Amino acid sequence: MERDLLGVREVPAEAYWGIHTLRAMENFQLGGETVGSTPGLVSAIAAVKESAAKANMELGLLDPNVGGAIVAACRDLRSGGLHDQFPVPLIQGGAGTSTNMNANEVIANRALEHLNEPRGSYGLVSPNEHVNMGQSTNDVYPTALKLATIHGCQGLVGALERFQAACERKAREFDHIVKMGRTQLQDAVPMTLGQEFRSYAVTIREDVARLTEAVVHLHEINLGATAIGTGLNTHPRYASIVREQLMAVTGLPVTTSPDLVEATQDCGVFVLISAAVKRAAVKLSKISNDLRLLSSGPRAGFGEINLPARQAGSSIMPGKVNPVIPELVNQVAFEIIGADVTISLAAEAGQLQLNAFEPIIASSLFRSINHLRIAANTLADACIDGITANEQALQDHVARSIGIVTALSPYLGYHMSGEIAAEALRTGRAVVDLVLDRELLDPELLGRLLHPQAIAGGGISPRSDRASSTREL
Amino acid sequence: MERDLLGVREVPAEAYWGIHTLRAMENFQLGGETVGSTPGLVSAIAAVKESAAKANMELGLLDPNVGGAIVAACRDLRSGGLHDQFPVPLIQGGAGTSTNMNANEVIANRALEHLNEPRGSYGLVSPNEHVNMGQSTNDVYPTALKLATIHGCQGLVGALERFQAACERKAREFDHIVKMGRTQLQDAVPMTLGQEFRSYAVTIREDVARLTEAVVHLHEINLGATAIGTGLNTHPRYASIVREQLMAVTGLPVTTSPDLVEATQDCGVFVLISAAVKRAAVKLSKISNDLRLLSSGPRAGFGEINLPARQAGSSIMPGKVNPVIPELVNQVAFEIIGADVTISLAAEAGQLQLNAFEPIIASSLFRSINHLRIAANTLADACIDGITANEQALQDHVARSIGIVTALSPYLGYHMSGEIAAEALRTGRAVVDLVLDRELLDPELLGRLLHPQAIAGGGISPRSDRASSTREL
Amino acid sequence: MERDLLGVREVPAEAYWGIHTLRAMENFQLGGETVGSTPGLVSAIAAVKESAAKANMELGLLDPNVGGAIVAACRDLRSGGLHDQFPVPLIQGGAGTSTNMNANEVIANRALEHLNEPRGSYGLVSPNEHVNMGQSTNDVYPTALKLATIHGCQGLVGALERFQAACERKAREFDHIVKMGRTQLQDAVPMTLGQEFRSYAVTIREDVARLTEAVVHLHEINLGATAIGTGLNTHPRYASIVREQLMAVTGLPVTTSPDLVEATQDCGVFVLISAAVKRAAVKLSKISNDLRLLSSGPRAGFGEINLPARQAGSSIMPGKVNPVIPELVNQVAFEIIGADVTISLAAEAGQLQLNAFEPIIASSLFRSINHLRIAANTLADACIDGITANEQALQDHVARSIGIVTALSPYLGYHMSGEIAAEALRTGRAVVDLVLDRELLDPELLGRLLHPQAIAGGGISPRSDRASSTREL
Amino acid sequence: MERDLLGVREVPAEAYWGIHTLRAMENFQLGGETVGSTPGLVSAIAAVKESAAKANMELGLLDPNVGGAIVAACRDLRSGGLHDQFPVPLIQGGAGTSTNMNANEVIANRALEHLNEPRGSYGLVSPNEHVNMGQSTNDVYPTALKLATIHGCQGLVGALERFQAACERKAREFDHIVKMGRTQLQDAVPMTLGQEFRSYAVTIREDVARLTEAVVHLHEINLGATAIGTGLNTHPRYASIVREQLMAVTGLPVTTSPDLVEATQDCGVFVLISAAVKRAAVKLSKISNDLRLLSSGPRAGFGEINLPARQAGSSIMPGKVNPVIPELVNQVAFEIIGADVTISLAAEAGQLQLNAFEPIIASSLFRSINHLRIAANTLADACIDGITANEQALQDHVARSIGIVTALSPYLGYHMSGEIAAEALRTGRAVVDLVLDRELLDPELLGRLLHPQAIAGGGISPRSDRASSTREL
Repeated sequence: MERDLLGVREVPAEAYWGIHTLRAMENFQLGGETVGSTPGLVSAIAAVKESAAKANMELGLLDPNVGGAIVAACRDLRSGGLHDQFPVPLIQGGAGTSTNMNANEVIANRALEHLNEPRGSYGLVSPNEHVNMGQSTNDVYPTALKLATIHGCQGLVGALERFQAACERKAREFDHIVKMGRTQLQDAVPMTLGQEFRSYAVTIREDVARLTEAVVHLHEINLGATAIGTGLNTHPRYASIVREQLMAVTGLPVTTSPDLVEATQDCGVFVLISAAVKRAAVKLSKISNDLRLLSSGPRAGFGEINLPARQAGSSIMPGKVNPVIPELVNQVAFEIIGADVTISLAAEAGQLQLNAFEPIIASSLFRSINHLRIAANTLADACIDGITANEQALQDHVARSIGIVTALSPYLGYHMSGEIAAEALRTGRAVVDLVLDRELLDPELLGRLLHPQAIAGGGISPRSDRASSTREL
Repeated sequence: MERDLLGVREVPAEAYWGIHTLRAMENFQLGGETVGSTPGLVSAIAAVKESAAKANMELGLLDPNVGGAIVAACRDLRSGGLHDQFPVPLIQGGAGTSTNMNANEVIANRALEHLNEPRGSYGLVSPNEHVNMGQSTNDVYPTALKLATIHGCQGLVGALERFQAACERKAREFDHIVKMGRTQLQDAVPMTLGQEFRSYAVTIREDVARLTEAVVHLHEINLGATAIGTGLNTHPRYASIVREQLMAVTGLPVTTSPDLVEATQDCGVFVLISAAVKRAAVKLSKISNDLRLLSSGPRAGFGEINLPARQAGSSIMPGKVNPVIPELVNQVAFEIIGADVTISLAAEAGQLQLNAFEPIIASSLFRSINHLRIAANTLADACIDGITANEQALQDHVARSIGIVTALSPYLGYHMSGEIAAEALRTGRAVVDLVLDRELLDPELLGRLLHPQAIAGGGISPRSDRASSTREL
Repeated sequence: MERDLLGVREVPAEAYWGIHTLRAMENFQLGGETVGSTPGLVSAIAAVKESAAKANMELGLLDPNVGGAIVAACRDLRSGGLHDQFPVPLIQGGAGTSTNMNANEVIANRALEHLNEPRGSYGLVSPNEHVNMGQSTNDVYPTALKLATIHGCQGLVGALERFQAACERKAREFDHIVKMGRTQLQDAVPMTLGQEFRSYAVTIREDVARLTEAVVHLHEINLGATAIGTGLNTHPRYASIVREQLMAVTGLPVTTSPDLVEATQDCGVFVLISAAVKRAAVKLSKISNDLRLLSSGPRAGFGEINLPARQAGSSIMPGKVNPVIPELVNQVAFEIIGADVTISLAAEAGQLQLNAFEPIIASSLFRSINHLRIAANTLADACIDGITANEQALQDHVARSIGIVTALSPYLGYHMSGEIAAEALRTGRAVVDLVLDRELLDPELLGRLLHPQAIAGGGISPRSDRASSTREL
Repeated sequence: MERDLLGVREVPAEAYWGIHTLRAMENFQLGGETVGSTPGLVSAIAAVKESAAKANMELGLLDPNVGGAIVAACRDLRSGGLHDQFPVPLIQGGAGTSTNMNANEVIANRALEHLNEPRGSYGLVSPNEHVNMGQSTNDVYPTALKLATIHGCQGLVGALERFQAACERKAREFDHIVKMGRTQLQDAVPMTLGQEFRSYAVTIREDVARLTEAVVHLHEINLGATAIGTGLNTHPRYASIVREQLMAVTGLPVTTSPDLVEATQDCGVFVLISAAVKRAAVKLSKISNDLRLLSSGPRAGFGEINLPARQAGSSIMPGKVNPVIPELVNQVAFEIIGADVTISLAAEAGQLQLNAFEPIIASSLFRSINHLRIAANTLADACIDGITANEQALQDHVARSIGIVTALSPYLGYHMSGEIAAEALRTGRAVVDLVLDRELLDPELLGRLLHPQAIAGGGISPRSDRASSTREL
């Protein structure tokens, strides 16, 4: 039996949580993820609570016996214990209060256990007066969200680096293979398949850098702000001490925001992180589109590369193999672009001294980070690593290409080159033959100019061998 | 031990699923919802499979013994059995093939059980040749998505109607209470609190109507299209018979799309439904914002209504009660607006004869529908029903109001009325006093004009009592 | 010199607008579109004002002389005159008040001109007391937005129908051309190019239907609601009479909303229209993606169709021709999907008795409708109409295809067919040769089964000629 | 008369543009902004063209006479001339080719003018061979977009700083005014009005920092990449020299991307900038919401501050003044959140070696930057600067507050404090009276604890005067 301001309720004897958690479960019934199914968040809250207890002991505000038991309980949570005692849904009204209350209750009851006292003896260890001492949901919850997000981003960065390394390996493997580059899906000019895969590595490396820069800002916390940033009910030295304790507990270089009123109402850092995650997702989706295009076929498509077969592709078409891994990545990207909208809306909806919509920000952002991490790892391991090149097809595309005429443009001029191109398209003849027929260029120079490797490498500069240029003629 | 085109793999003996499901689990590791955790979808697939088996039996293509066992297996699924045998994640690459393959395998093995044959005896009942006979993922999966969405929308409509009824009850309860209406958060002119709540009922009733209209289009299915809409490998009468069977099995008036090629590639109906769901979410969010505004306070806000207390509102501020239920609704709305973007992107990304991104459409749309249903029910039961009015505060606001000067405007003119308003604001005096001081209107007429109920009801028409109007003077 | 509640200001003598317009121009300086650059909106407001004047005259509230001049002024606006007198930006704060004030001022001054009175003689014809009689921005502005949107949607429907007709013509032209269908960008089974283009016609025809249904709801107006829906300062019969007048003036079957309080705060109909427009945009974008894919090449792509050349494609690559028209359509679709988010946010942000954010809804929606209309017309005229088929390439793709093995699956079984497919892919040999080598099927049956037209048309039903099936063997 | 690969067309004699521009105008008819109406873009292209001409002259590839004339023409454009010669719409198909072609033509003809040669003498100065020498749309256009975006961001940063400074001035002005803080729209604990406005300054200062960091990445250009990043048709030293020239011409520290293939296909930097702009918009919208809330009333709202009156607020309600400036800012934010979706979609849609959808990125991003700059400046000048405080109302709110009981919680405990709060709410009595009645705290301590300034400043630490705490009793 527990009591709150609304009355008395029965709580299961075996539960570590209490009446506040009970009411939250009744109020928020969306199902789906609970706080307990988000281990990074439970650990982060426990780290905050442990740091706060230590700070309050250091300040002489918390009995060391009680404080010690609270610290022990927090460590139990951080090492993975009792996560099933967080049945509160991740998406909840109340700005995270229910998450904080759930943690206060579980920690209090677990601390009581450490003290060999029965659960519910809140006179000895009170969820609100001891576990939550000097704290408010409004500083505990956003701080914990930031810690959990830092943790999530570390995993995502690792996955992006794994993808980048896989692309780099393929780039080296494919560096000798010349192919047609394409712009606007139309044949353009030659390049190498290695260049194509290297561009994927390079572009994602940039996202690793941007994400890493963004994560720095997650380290600025508002612990000590309490309800609205004025630090009400905290000791003057509390904010500074709790920060040091949190640094020690987590090993992260956290800093205290210089303006706690602003820090308590602002969700800008989550908008920033979501944008960085979205950017990486947008790029992985573009790369997945490319992979699906390049492997289209096997007979009636581009057919330039082969993705590793992962499963039978069709319940009706025997032998069909589909690009299921890139398709997974595309879908994750679509989800993340949508989630970024959700996060922006929630951030915009904050009012006055608090943003009450942090739970949906947390839910959406955690999902985005987690899904993109898995998607990037899967794309690296189950797709990129096994890609092979159809060298014959790639070579044929270059040989039949009209776009190589571009390399002659500095010698023949833009208009004449355009005429050659049009005739090649119309007649099906090769560019080289048409140029020779019309005696427009010396065969030797022509051979050098149209050498695919040369074109892929940037071509032969027109005026670096000026003497032989027909343009001078 | 099972074999597919990629090789041989070991499958747990106790599992009803087989090698295709195994590979899908390895390929798609996002976690989160599985097909099995979406009961509406499992039932919908089973209904499709049952109808197909019946159609194939009717056409003499499927041995009645085998077909009967398949039908029995489908009924097991539809009555809630074996859902744990659908471990494939809802978000998957491959356009739903893994979901279909998972179903084919479970149904085949369950059918074998009904025939007292060992699992895996696919020579007798084959997942692909018998269970999937005349079918392709590309017609089974979208048809099942539509059935599951119809089911979900029925629940949502029920919840919206529940919300609407709750608002209507409150409207009747509050019909006698006059209050200040507000535009742009500025005091406007009087109305009744009943009118305010009735507008909530009316606006959601419109969404029920729109959603109901949209759901009609979900009944157009592409069963019989097989791979790309040409109906390859189906009997000429199959599409027609399977539709009739599905109608009988589900009780829904499904129709076959007149152009199966179009129907197989198009996801427009999901865009339509998502938009209808989003519209309802947008409105519930607006209403939730209103409820939070009107109940702001208790001392330093609008303070016009009281939401029922649901839980302690703060871990630090004793006695604080927050609008946690409307906040939940807001967050669900933000999520749904984001999901609508996801669904639009996925629909746009379809290519040629198929949209491979239906799984993320399904995942996002099911989540939106489900969350909005719960949110609407919660808002009705845990918030609207318990709302009370602060009649004194509401009356005070009207009494102190300047906006009532609008009712005098047809008599005094826009400019003179504006002057009165400005003076009232500047001096703090009441509009009625200022008008009497200046002898602008006859006291009796003034009394009638400014009678709040009259204003709320639409005011007294200026020229219907023309003779006494000061304007004529 | 004009005066308002903030003071006295100088207004250009030649302007028809007055002090309220002047202040709005100073306050809202985003540039871009003005109300005057949106002719449909000016006409719509004028239609509302004309109807209101007529209603007020009919009720005996407005002097026929004054009313007649107002009606004449409104007709001047509706026939295209004085639109340059609406310099107020379309995006403005204040819920459209500045647009309404601008109209009141222009109409008053133009009416004075008709009466041969000097501009600014507001004692005779007052913008607020006569032109705006019985009206509020809060009923005039949304009503005018709806009328203007109806007008815009009519143009859009016309463009979509034009696109649909162009696709139907191509469908008929291409009905005899067999090609490979593709799912997930992988070769699937044969179909005809005519079926492909017909699916475009069919899918857009559905959007025409959905859009037309949605437009019906735009006809429900809130004229007579005045400030907050209570009809304050209107004659009891005003709402009914003004609706009849508006119906006569516009020829549109407008109806008065049964709950004017709801109607005045709700923007749901714009969310609905935006969603319908977005759906059409999503589909046109998908079709544009298809066109770009199918025309990719000319040598290293799908190369199945040729889009008409519209302009030189590259400043550096001579002879390159790009799919510029579909690219335009894609971009318009991206813009519209973004605008739909904007409109949802603005609708959600309404508060209490009004949505102050209708101007951004109007700006975004008008832009979406207008751009999609132009894009659809351009796509029809400058692209679809000129498309030609590369029949040789299309035929080669079918001939080399492995996917046709699907048609054998009912005879060979799913597994054996998969083996044949794998061998064909590995060896480069044709499916037909491999089946004959292994003596799996009678050559005559094989020929019939693999006949492309047969496959495209739905194949030959396996059991309709059961006797000859190898399956029985 | 000019000729391109499609044929011969007549071009107006007085036009500086030519046949490519003509065809673009025919193909892209969306109306709205042209390249010429975006001065920053014309100047940026001219800067690129000038730098390229100088580089080509330095490399001996371009005749100094011709090159000098091209440079002179570019300077004419950069100083604002001939912008009306860029009639090509900003939104166009073709990846910006038409914009580049338009520039090539105008510069060639203007250069011919400088050489006293007739327009169209392209044998002397050719748009493609001389003006576009060593260039492709695919490096010129994105480089120019980046330069134009840098310019736009500088203006935006200036506006955000102006807003920040305005808020800081108000913060200092209001530092002495105690008020109730609110969380979740419910009364929380006291703070000062100065703290509230300072938080606005602080939060926007962070956006200035984030935006400034993001802009750094705009300086990485791909000039020298030509068509697909391989540098085809450029001199080996061209990329390096043109970068130096561009640095000299613009004064910006531009760098050349280390991987030009990646740089030519990637639009990530625009996603980054859009996100930074969106974040600032989200925050300004939240602040605008706060301002509208705090100024709600005048009699039936929060009524804590007064926004300066900017215009008459209503056409029907005399004397009404609305928060039109914050409403403008909200709408701009909604637009920007939508535009960010558009930009993400366009970035995702890039294929292989190029993103053909940069024009819609440019159009959307320029609009977002421009609108937010104007909105921030307007909000600073036309709203923040004129805000006044209703000191009496602010003080009354604190005096009547129940939330101050939080300050007693460390002494009375969470539960007892909650009881006091509930009684205060129920009875309407003051917290201080209830505590004294029950003799829970020493009056002197109570006075100190509840002193509003003390609470706003962080309260008195409970245990720093432990001896007198009732808790010990």
